[in-house]
Amino acid sequence: MPELTLSELVGILAEKGMPCGIEGDPSVVVRAVNTLADAVEGELSFLANPKYRKQLTTTRASAVLVSNNAPPNGRCVKLRCQNPYAAVAFAVDAIHGRRQHPQWGLSDAADISPKASIGPGANIAAGVSIEADVVIGAKATIYPGCYVGKGVTIGDEVTLFANAVIYDGSKLGHRVTIHAGTVIGQDGVGYAPVDGKWIKIPQAGHVELGDDVEIGALCAIDRATLGVTRIGRGTKFSNLIAIGHGTKIGEDCMMVAQVGIAGSVDVGNHVVMGGQVGVAGHVTIGDRTQVAGRSGVLADIPADQKIMGLPAVPSGDARRQLILVQRLPAMRLQIRQMQAEIDRLTQLVEGEKRPSGGSSASSR
Amino acid sequence: MPELTLSELVGILAEKGMPCGIEGDPSVVVRAVNTLADAVEGELSFLANPKYRKQLTTTRASAVLVSNNAPPNGRCVKLRCQNPYAAVAFAVDAIHGRRQHPQWGLSDAADISPKASIGPGANIAAGVSIEADVVIGAKATIYPGCYVGKGVTIGDEVTLFANAVIYDGSKLGHRVTIHAGTVIGQDGVGYAPVDGKWIKIPQAGHVELGDDVEIGALCAIDRATLGVTRIGRGTKFSNLIAIGHGTKIGEDCMMVAQVGIAGSVDVGNHVVMGGQVGVAGHVTIGDRTQVAGRSGVLADIPADQKIMGLPAVPSGDARRQLILVQRLPAMRLQIRQMQAEIDRLTQLVEGEKRPSGGSSASSR
Amino acid sequence: MPELTLSELVGILAEKGMPCGIEGDPSVVVRAVNTLADAVEGELSFLANPKYRKQLTTTRASAVLVSNNAPPNGRCVKLRCQNPYAAVAFAVDAIHGRRQHPQWGLSDAADISPKASIGPGANIAAGVSIEADVVIGAKATIYPGCYVGKGVTIGDEVTLFANAVIYDGSKLGHRVTIHAGTVIGQDGVGYAPVDGKWIKIPQAGHVELGDDVEIGALCAIDRATLGVTRIGRGTKFSNLIAIGHGTKIGEDCMMVAQVGIAGSVDVGNHVVMGGQVGVAGHVTIGDRTQVAGRSGVLADIPADQKIMGLPAVPSGDARRQLILVQRLPAMRLQIRQMQAEIDRLTQLVEGEKRPSGGSSASSR
Repeated sequence: MPELTLSELVGILAEKGMPCGIEGDPSVVVRAVNTLADAVEGELSFLANPKYRKQLTTTRASAVLVSNNAPPNGRCVKLRCQNPYAAVAFAVDAIHGRRQHPQWGLSDAADISPKASIGPGANIAAGVSIEADVVIGAKATIYPGCYVGKGVTIGDEVTLFANAVIYDGSKLGHRVTIHAGTVIGQDGVGYAPVDGKWIKIPQAGHVELGDDVEIGALCAIDRATLGVTRIGRGTKFSNLIAIGHGTKIGEDCMMVAQVGIAGSVDVGNHVVMGGQVGVAGHVTIGDRTQVAGRSGVLADIPADQKIMGLPAVPSGDARRQLILVQRLPAMRLQIRQMQAEIDRLTQLVEGEKRPSGGSSASSR
Repeated sequence: MPELTLSELVGILAEKGMPCGIEGDPSVVVRAVNTLADAVEGELSFLANPKYRKQLTTTRASAVLVSNNAPPNGRCVKLRCQNPYAAVAFAVDAIHGRRQHPQWGLSDAADISPKASIGPGANIAAGVSIEADVVIGAKATIYPGCYVGKGVTIGDEVTLFANAVIYDGSKLGHRVTIHAGTVIGQDGVGYAPVDGKWIKIPQAGHVELGDDVEIGALCAIDRATLGVTRIGRGTKFSNLIAIGHGTKIGEDCMMVAQVGIAGSVDVGNHVVMGGQVGVAGHVTIGDRTQVAGRSGVLADIPADQKIMGLPAVPSGDARRQLILVQRLPAMRLQIRQMQAEIDRLTQLVEGEKRPSGGSSASSR
Repeated sequence: MPELTLSELVGILAEKGMPCGIEGDPSVVVRAVNTLADAVEGELSFLANPKYRKQLTTTRASAVLVSNNAPPNGRCVKLRCQNPYAAVAFAVDAIHGRRQHPQWGLSDAADISPKASIGPGANIAAGVSIEADVVIGAKATIYPGCYVGKGVTIGDEVTLFANAVIYDGSKLGHRVTIHAGTVIGQDGVGYAPVDGKWIKIPQAGHVELGDDVEIGALCAIDRATLGVTRIGRGTKFSNLIAIGHGTKIGEDCMMVAQVGIAGSVDVGNHVVMGGQVGVAGHVTIGDRTQVAGRSGVLADIPADQKIMGLPAVPSGDARRQLILVQRLPAMRLQIRQMQAEIDRLTQLVEGEKRPSGGSSASSR
């Protein structure tokens, strides 16, 4: 890990299109990036989530990346920039670097079909199995225990972490990253009910992942029954996500852990789903829509919405409903009191009328 | 992939017990099955979900399998039958065929215990480990990276896709299919709390899967603490499903992705659970009951119910509750207006009485 | 499996600090432990969950571990003790024993870096890959297909079941157990949005698991972006659990299947979460708090709470809300009837006034 002065670091960030102003001594040296709470002297930190603003005064970090409108609190040097969370990405890169993959070359202990085509510079570990008619691009890295089925196409600079499984016929673009244990292209639940039994519909489709897709650990993406299940360019998944057969997800989306999307769903570009969201089959979700964690999407949703709840509705409506559910005990109490008042009024009005005759009954 | 005329295809479907009437030219040739939206000329499609009915007029498919009461819209040839979704299963089979497994025979790079018994025609890949006292039936196919623990019994024509793990003592029936990464028979969370620590209860039971069970990718089925965790004949699972220790699931059930069933649950036959359903421990669910996606089952449910919600209740009740929750803002408004009316009435009635003395107080 | 007389068994339990009284013949022999429903003659059972109390009269078990205040029903011998669920842990241990791992020694078919340090008595199977700078303690057992990344530290007597994946830099304490397919230390979803694309923040942190941690099958624990994701000593996980980057979980916690905890969460000691619970990012949960299954924790929760619902609130409040939601149809009916009564009263009061002039309007 290199040590950098703040002026060197700011120079690197400027090259990446992230100009920063330095409030303090530009000759201060940082040798690691850390959280505000854990950083010690000689480390760089960052303030992106306002929840941690108070830590600016208590952190022992020597310098902190902050937004242009963050308070000047604390003794550390401030590096002010427009998007400190993006700047920290480049700072971590500059100081810590990125993961260096072990270099296996083409391991003798990998089982590679003679009918597979492996690009130059590929790095394929022991215990990998690659079937016939597979095409793997240049500089791909395949960790131990991965399985690549018949006819799979994998682009350049793809990384498959350990024990990933790519079923026959899947197509992965360039620079795709698949984390450990993820399964791409298994059969979906395609069965027709006949006389109380489930008749399997052969799953004749496949999966396509666009360029720069990153899929977390232990996700399961069904192949299509017919045609394609597609994850668009630049989309990122966390872990333990299930995608049903024939679903299409657009570009630059983000799916947090344990999201489950049923089959034949159509998700636009730049869509974000929080953890544990569920989406029912055959619905369409428009571009840039954001779905709060744990929501259940049961119907088509237009573009540019923020939705939550089950069924998911605009977040303002969902919050109002939640608040009112929490106030139901008070509401019930009020209803009881109103009933008592009505009963009293009724007695008053009718008690007063009763001596003068039965007119109240006839007025009903 | 063979090309078939519609009259040839209808002949095949009739043999499978799916007679179809042809509305149009029976000599038309189809060479693939595809969705209504994606099919091109020379392809067969199908209409099973009424949501896609409009596509009948826009599809470029040459022929479409439809139900007997589907509209005659569109220029494509109609193949009318009772259950188009079942017919398409056989049509895909006839035109696309089923997945052909790679043929590894008994790979030299598999690690098979000399104390294991492997049936004739078995197809066992590189990187498979099979422990002592395992019995594997005829024509089983075991993909790379699978682990089969001590004393496991596996029936005929079973398929274990890549990296499936079968713990010691599990019993799999004939024609069972396990998709990639699924784990059968790990210990459940059986711990007794003693002085603030968790004391592990050895998990001495095992798992049994009946004939024709198909389990999706990345499911986890706990072994029983004592006795057996059982999945009944013909039951089908999607992906990322968790089954707790000692739970019994009946025959011909279907569980959609991310279902989680706790331990000691008893599920009947022909039960269907939508995605992300949760079932609490120790409950019983009757035959043929259907649980809507994302529901939480917290209590025993009789047979033949359709339930939803958390806690899951009959779907009609759950829908009424959901609608009323959505109307809570309007309900609150109405309560406020009623309160205002009551206040006004009270003032009217009591204001009128006040001059004539304190009689209203005594009438309370 | 040894046969034991009840007096021998009671002697063993007394040594473990679990004294039992015998109600019946102490010379009765038991040769297996089983559930009340499945036990046959010659077997020991136990009653820990009051739901099964009735089975005490119908079980065929020869002896049953019961609590001191359980009823004397049934013909079987009763072994009375303070905590029958803990006693059964030791009884299963004494009668069934614990799983015996296959003994592979250091398999020739494992791929172990010459730069790794492997402790004495280690048991490493075929198909395992261990990278450089790994340190593995004494008597560790690593099942087939596991991957141990660069610089990982693993304590004594650790068990990694088949196909577990430990990413570079992770640290596992002594006696840690990881079930099959679990992934430790993959990158979390750390991306900064820049011009509609996701810029990856290199995930430079790591994961630490304390001594005696047990993790179920197919869990995914993110490495920290910076610093550490930590699971405290003695904590137990079920299956398919997702833990976000930088989250800290205390000691002796229990997480049931499919729990999902986002990043930067701080969970205390002795916390229990039921199945499918979700926890939003950046929240703090106090010691000993219990979260009911399927709850969603969206805000900080103090110690010693029992919470449920979405958002999770004290369980009593949540139950009251649920009951009132179920009563919403009745509440709406009551509101309608009240409205009708108000309308009638209004008509009565104003109808009576109308002849005598406009005084009611002026009284508003």
